[in-house]
Amino acid sequence: DFFIFYFFLKEIDTFINGWVEARNSRGNVGLVPEDYIEEWDDDSDDGKSTVGYGGSQMEEGGTMQRGGAHSTMKISLNKFPGFSKTPNPEVYLLTKSVAKGNDKLPIYAGEVGPVWLYPQIQLDCVVADPKKGSKMYGLKSYIEYQITPNTTNRPVNHRYKHFDWLYERLVEKFACALPIPCLPDKQVTGRFEEEFIKMRMERLQGWMSRMCRHPVISNSEVLQLFLNYRDEKEWKLGKRKAEKDEFVGVKIFSTIDPELPELDPGQVEQKYEMYSQFTRSMDNSVKELLAVGHLHWKRCTGPLQKEYRQIGKAFQNLSSVFNTSAYPSRKLDATGKTYEEIAELVAGQPKKDLHFLMETNNEYKGLLGCFPDTIAVHKAAIDKVKEADHLVTMNKISQQDKHIMEKNLSTMSYALQAEMNHFHSNRIYDYNRLMQFYLEEQVKFYETIAEKLKKALGQYTTM
Amino acid sequence: DFFIFYFFLKEIDTFINGWVEARNSRGNVGLVPEDYIEEWDDDSDDGKSTVGYGGSQMEEGGTMQRGGAHSTMKISLNKFPGFSKTPNPEVYLLTKSVAKGNDKLPIYAGEVGPVWLYPQIQLDCVVADPKKGSKMYGLKSYIEYQITPNTTNRPVNHRYKHFDWLYERLVEKFACALPIPCLPDKQVTGRFEEEFIKMRMERLQGWMSRMCRHPVISNSEVLQLFLNYRDEKEWKLGKRKAEKDEFVGVKIFSTIDPELPELDPGQVEQKYEMYSQFTRSMDNSVKELLAVGHLHWKRCTGPLQKEYRQIGKAFQNLSSVFNTSAYPSRKLDATGKTYEEIAELVAGQPKKDLHFLMETNNEYKGLLGCFPDTIAVHKAAIDKVKEADHLVTMNKISQQDKHIMEKNLSTMSYALQAEMNHFHSNRIYDYNRLMQFYLEEQVKFYETIAEKLKKALGQYTTM
Repeated sequence: DFFIFYFFLKEIDTFINGWVEARNSRGNVGLVPEDYIEEWDDDSDDGKSTVGYGGSQMEEGGTMQRGGAHSTMKISLNKFPGFSKTPNPEVYLLTKSVAKGNDKLPIYAGEVGPVWLYPQIQLDCVVADPKKGSKMYGLKSYIEYQITPNTTNRPVNHRYKHFDWLYERLVEKFACALPIPCLPDKQVTGRFEEEFIKMRMERLQGWMSRMCRHPVISNSEVLQLFLNYRDEKEWKLGKRKAEKDEFVGVKIFSTIDPELPELDPGQVEQKYEMYSQFTRSMDNSVKELLAVGHLHWKRCTGPLQKEYRQIGKAFQNLSSVFNTSAYPSRKLDATGKTYEEIAELVAGQPKKDLHFLMETNNEYKGLLGCFPDTIAVHKAAIDKVKEADHLVTMNKISQQDKHIMEKNLSTMSYALQAEMNHFHSNRIYDYNRLMQFYLEEQVKFYETIAEKLKKALGQYTTM
Repeated sequence: DFFIFYFFLKEIDTFINGWVEARNSRGNVGLVPEDYIEEWDDDSDDGKSTVGYGGSQMEEGGTMQRGGAHSTMKISLNKFPGFSKTPNPEVYLLTKSVAKGNDKLPIYAGEVGPVWLYPQIQLDCVVADPKKGSKMYGLKSYIEYQITPNTTNRPVNHRYKHFDWLYERLVEKFACALPIPCLPDKQVTGRFEEEFIKMRMERLQGWMSRMCRHPVISNSEVLQLFLNYRDEKEWKLGKRKAEKDEFVGVKIFSTIDPELPELDPGQVEQKYEMYSQFTRSMDNSVKELLAVGHLHWKRCTGPLQKEYRQIGKAFQNLSSVFNTSAYPSRKLDATGKTYEEIAELVAGQPKKDLHFLMETNNEYKGLLGCFPDTIAVHKAAIDKVKEADHLVTMNKISQQDKHIMEKNLSTMSYALQAEMNHFHSNRIYDYNRLMQFYLEEQVKFYETIAEKLKKALGQYTTM
């Protein structure tokens, strides 16, 4: 029994001018462009609409048809109504064998504590060149992106649905141990198709880079397939293999091999509490920053721009009046124009700096939103191990079983610690880069305004 | 029959926590502090509550009593219900004689057109050191200001009511030819007594400087008395003399002596149209600037300050969360503090620059508000002269009378032209100084923010 984390469109509720209100299986509602739905659902290119979900191998979920303006759409329905339940770690906790060879995920003692094995060269890729393609004599259209990994420098093409397939595989395989952030599907901000495509590409880039940066994910067969497949045949074979992978869900922990002394359950619980607290607090802070950033964006592009335009206009009008006298002068008019320029600088600034701040924090909001589920698996394991003494007394498990459970819980904790250390290292890098960029742009912004005002002032001091 | 321009408190409508809603004789309503009313009306220091109004010599206007929280107040009522009618220039238009000697107000051909005779040294004064005094065992209190003219460098003391007396004399004597701006009585912005006194002193300073800068007013006996009286006796004698002055109202024109060729009525009308248009347009522009300045002030001290504080707080909160991890850092906290400092800079800025912009424009709004009345006297004269041909035909006036009327109209026009040229010269000086000051402060403001952000940025780039 596996646990499926992923979100997908469950219902199409309303059509509004090419925009579709969609609800995911968590009940979150958002607007997505119709084209996107169309594309997302258009899976006729590989001849089958069945997607395997780990070991369950269920064939063909429900499909739903509704007449759209341009096409008929098929939307997958959630095949696992109980998916939001925490997966049961019991199966793993009693597992004695550990995966061997290539499948092993070692954890080492790093300077900052337990760490994953990092590759010599960090994988990365460039997502670029979105191209619109169409099929069925133009009835169905889709966007194809070019993804070029730094390892091969050879581009591969993928549609959004392939990203989504990758996401599903990663969730199945890793989500019990690693938070796998959602794809940028519901965060639609652009109103026009071009803007939307650009925004989605930027976010797919961010998502892909984050996956590539992860030492465990970057090394996974499924990501390697996604980035390196050479032809359709290799892609399809690889897909089928990945869909049949059995080391998914809580079983991932049996591939983890910490080369470190076993932790007792008390230490494990302490770590769990700490990470749980940290991720919840950071989630709140990130949301606070996003909220005030959103307000600031609206003020800059709305009332502030308007106000600086009005100030500029008022100076220019006064200047016009002065120029009807026998003493004309262009100084005040120039000041007015300067304030009109400032109005445009103020309105244009959020796109220059706040955009990146919002995007980064949105990404972290998504990532932090995955932690409660990942952490819940650990909590369930901690609770199971707490029951162990009682189970021994009841003769339900042996002393040896209890020891295995504790050892496995220690392994889970090391996985969480390695993951948190990875998270912190990324977090430090990302926020340093973000704040540096943001402050640089803010400095430029205020300096540009000061420069403009100095020029306007120059006209008065030369009199 | 004279025309009284001045405004004074006509009714006390409401008491609100020490603030009084007052309506002047024009129907304008505003809040003034109770103390101010008390002071304004407290005229017991010269033993009589009668004030003469030019030639009318009416004794004791109506007084009104209303129980206040602290004292009984006597408020003068308007003695001239028809005061808002345009004074009739007919008396002057048919006047043949011209004042001689010291009373003569010459007009010369300057570079920019007709100009008043400017004194060698420009008169100015410093209004300072407001002191609270009290009388009748503390039952009545008042504020006394020290006024030091640059000519004698010897301070004299005056209460607000003395300024008001001066204002009344200047209106009586000059308002048909020169716009006499109202005293800063109704423009109450400070909420606390100290702030109110400071603000009123600043505005009295502005008003006095404007009177001193005026070549006609600065030379008037009444202003000289106000600034130079040596003792109570000199002051009281001077007051009585000024109140009995007969060269007031439209008669002022008979003291004006333009040493320039006579203008025909067509030229006079053209000038009138031009000035009428200009002052109306400038009045509108000044009001527009005041309106947007007011909005901007409110935004800076309200929502913008709040927003920058929130941004600062959001960064600091995120920093606190980061510091609960094993990787503490003070960088983000410093950035947060920087944005909190920016919040205070933003909220404090209007007092530094917008204040002066608002004060200057408020002064000009007051001044421009006097022009319609001054200009209306000219319009009435133009209309009278237009009737002259008809009156000659009807044998109501002689050809010679008509010529006198035209000559006198020309004199009135020269007075208006000299006054407008004086206005423009002040206007150019005031707005250049204002804009220079405003832009300097704005440059400093944006540079200070850029500096602060650079410091915050420095913490990231040194990592």
